[in-house]
Amino acid sequence: MMRIYELETLAPEEILNRDIRAEAEVDAAVDAILEDVRLHGDGALRRYTRELDGAELGSLQVSGAELDAAWAALDADFRATLELAAENIRRFHAQQVHRDFCLTDRPGIIMGQRYTPIEKVGVCVPSSPTAFPSTILMNVIPAKIAGVEEIVLVTPPERDGSISPAALAAARIAGADRIFKLGGAQAVAALAYGTESVPRVDKIVGPGGIYVATAKRKVFGRVAIDMVAGPSEILVLADGGCRPDFVAADLLSQAEHDVFSSAVLVTDSLPLAQAVQREVEVQLERLPRREIARRSVEENGKILLTRSLDAAVDAANRIAPEHLELCVEDPFALLPRIRNAGSIFLGRSAPEALGDYFAGPNHTLPTSGTARFSSPLGVDDFIKRSSFLYYSQDVLAEAAPRIAEFARREGLEGHARSVLIRCESETKEM
Amino acid sequence: MMRIYELETLAPEEILNRDIRAEAEVDAAVDAILEDVRLHGDGALRRYTRELDGAELGSLQVSGAELDAAWAALDADFRATLELAAENIRRFHAQQVHRDFCLTDRPGIIMGQRYTPIEKVGVCVPSSPTAFPSTILMNVIPAKIAGVEEIVLVTPPERDGSISPAALAAARIAGADRIFKLGGAQAVAALAYGTESVPRVDKIVGPGGIYVATAKRKVFGRVAIDMVAGPSEILVLADGGCRPDFVAADLLSQAEHDVFSSAVLVTDSLPLAQAVQREVEVQLERLPRREIARRSVEENGKILLTRSLDAAVDAANRIAPEHLELCVEDPFALLPRIRNAGSIFLGRSAPEALGDYFAGPNHTLPTSGTARFSSPLGVDDFIKRSSFLYYSQDVLAEAAPRIAEFARREGLEGHARSVLIRCESETKEM
Repeated sequence: MMRIYELETLAPEEILNRDIRAEAEVDAAVDAILEDVRLHGDGALRRYTRELDGAELGSLQVSGAELDAAWAALDADFRATLELAAENIRRFHAQQVHRDFCLTDRPGIIMGQRYTPIEKVGVCVPSSPTAFPSTILMNVIPAKIAGVEEIVLVTPPERDGSISPAALAAARIAGADRIFKLGGAQAVAALAYGTESVPRVDKIVGPGGIYVATAKRKVFGRVAIDMVAGPSEILVLADGGCRPDFVAADLLSQAEHDVFSSAVLVTDSLPLAQAVQREVEVQLERLPRREIARRSVEENGKILLTRSLDAAVDAANRIAPEHLELCVEDPFALLPRIRNAGSIFLGRSAPEALGDYFAGPNHTLPTSGTARFSSPLGVDDFIKRSSFLYYSQDVLAEAAPRIAEFARREGLEGHARSVLIRCESETKEM
Repeated sequence: MMRIYELETLAPEEILNRDIRAEAEVDAAVDAILEDVRLHGDGALRRYTRELDGAELGSLQVSGAELDAAWAALDADFRATLELAAENIRRFHAQQVHRDFCLTDRPGIIMGQRYTPIEKVGVCVPSSPTAFPSTILMNVIPAKIAGVEEIVLVTPPERDGSISPAALAAARIAGADRIFKLGGAQAVAALAYGTESVPRVDKIVGPGGIYVATAKRKVFGRVAIDMVAGPSEILVLADGGCRPDFVAADLLSQAEHDVFSSAVLVTDSLPLAQAVQREVEVQLERLPRREIARRSVEENGKILLTRSLDAAVDAANRIAPEHLELCVEDPFALLPRIRNAGSIFLGRSAPEALGDYFAGPNHTLPTSGTARFSSPLGVDDFIKRSSFLYYSQDVLAEAAPRIAEFARREGLEGHARSVLIRCESETKEM
């Protein structure tokens, strides 16, 4: 049963499970795989795919014919669902595109900032019942909108060397340029170093198990990576007017992910707290993944009772949850007061699952309290800024004494001279 | 003497010095400092400051009286220079502020994205002749514009326990909220863990030596950090119409930083290459920091000869330099072709030093080729995004079958139920 606590009795770090699982034992294994792929390229990739995925691969890359066959094999109704979700995700992320700026209002001075896409990006997608088509949409579409030239998707094959039709259809809809049948640390290695078949990329994104996460950490610096996610979390902030069965269903949708997930309710209503506690038990019984969900709610789930809704809001900001549901009468009144949260679900008809698959905002979100300083995956993760600066000779000459003074204060005479030499004699200018 | 190479004979990684210096020997020392400060707080800070900076501190924090005295002690002319530079930096960075968005064009659906500032930020500034007032402006001003609530500046004291008036004046102008007399790994530890005097922050930014860089890497995850910078670099792309003395001065302004700096010229003109080679020798002789600059240009400097200006542009994109000067007849024609560079200096009157101190763009830039995937420090480093999502009950009911189908495809029945339960019977809705 989920336990009820008074919020004030817990420290913020006691509220959500944010243990990063021990990684020491996989460290050496990942090192070996990285080195092997770096040295032996495709040969190593085939070997690991045989050993770890049980698949003997011909081409590492998914062919056009395989893509076409997958497209035809998928039922039209689910294809339509994927296309609708993709359209929603595209529509949301298109709003994230920034404009360059250029300041031209001072005579002789032009300065500004340009956005350019990262050239090549790798997207890792773990295997699962159906290779997470939602993960493919959520990672590839923002990269596509950013203008990434080559998006390389990697996902491990089934034992027969195939990739699920749902995944391939999602990849086509999202706009992946090339797809490779690779998973685990070996896929990360291939993307970081490049092999005969797999292009080296500039950034690697996407979720993964401990091997993928460790490999990403290790190649970081050589390539960029997105966040390394901790256990998934939901904080449901609910007032006494909530339907307990809705709240329980939302908590369980998080809890069914894995036993490390945290599902937490914070409310100022004792009757709601107690009703949710009972309802979770009722719904748990009927859930296919009830063993996982039960361990999750019992080990990492909590019901927190606060003295007021204000106290609940303060707690949400301290916790900085990945997902925050504001299941209250007037959620828009609370929205401006939320400082730290990955994604915010407003009102009684916006369960987390709506955002996981369909509505448009990204489902890759900052976990483990990192919403204090980081953001959902988005177009920003696939672009970079450059600044630019032009001065006319006259304007430089005017500013030169101040720049030289500043440089000399910092002990850098060469900096001063690089400015002053341009002002010594205008007649020398070519 | 700087050596001339034909570009085609070098691999990109041979062009700029991008060795990250060995860190193994400081690892254990930094671990000990972090642990000590975590356990013993201010006591440990005082002890390290006594041992490492030779200063016996009363209060760790700079007082208002000290700030006032520094302000009065600094000559008015340099104060004016600092204020002018701050004004330029503010003007540029104000353009980086993003707008929230909200999509409201579909009945029953509201979704959008909000930006919120990171709450508390620590800025580390190393000691130097005058504690780098430019570093203070460049790190504090973007945080201030982002709306950071508390900006905590740390910089090591002189042996008499003082901080240079220039640094304190820059901190006041930039808008730092509190200043502590701390440097090295102990300052990073204080900001990451908090002590009796020093607040724990959410993100730590700013340059530093090997101790600060190592400590930042180690506390990363607990708090956010900015990039860990490698050696500084300049790539001057010049045509035959350039004044060799200007180019030489710009190369030397980079070379005087430290012996690891890379100053590289790429040009399609052999006469310019040879003239710059000679001119560097001439100017080196007269430079106060000539020992450092000579080692830098001889060990890490290069002159690269290309067959065309186009080939030089391609090289610049492959190298992805921190600073890129386009010293050519029509630099604006080349600007759209630059894909990878931290900061771009256009034309014959925009030496790097102009951007280092004064013009407005940030001087904290991606080194070591990371301009392929990362950006100059800016307002973006001090904010984060949250998405938000509202559906009316009707619209959720309409989308429910598709969301449920998607969730079931991914094997997550609990997700499907969290949506479907809201559509079972409208009359049950409270």
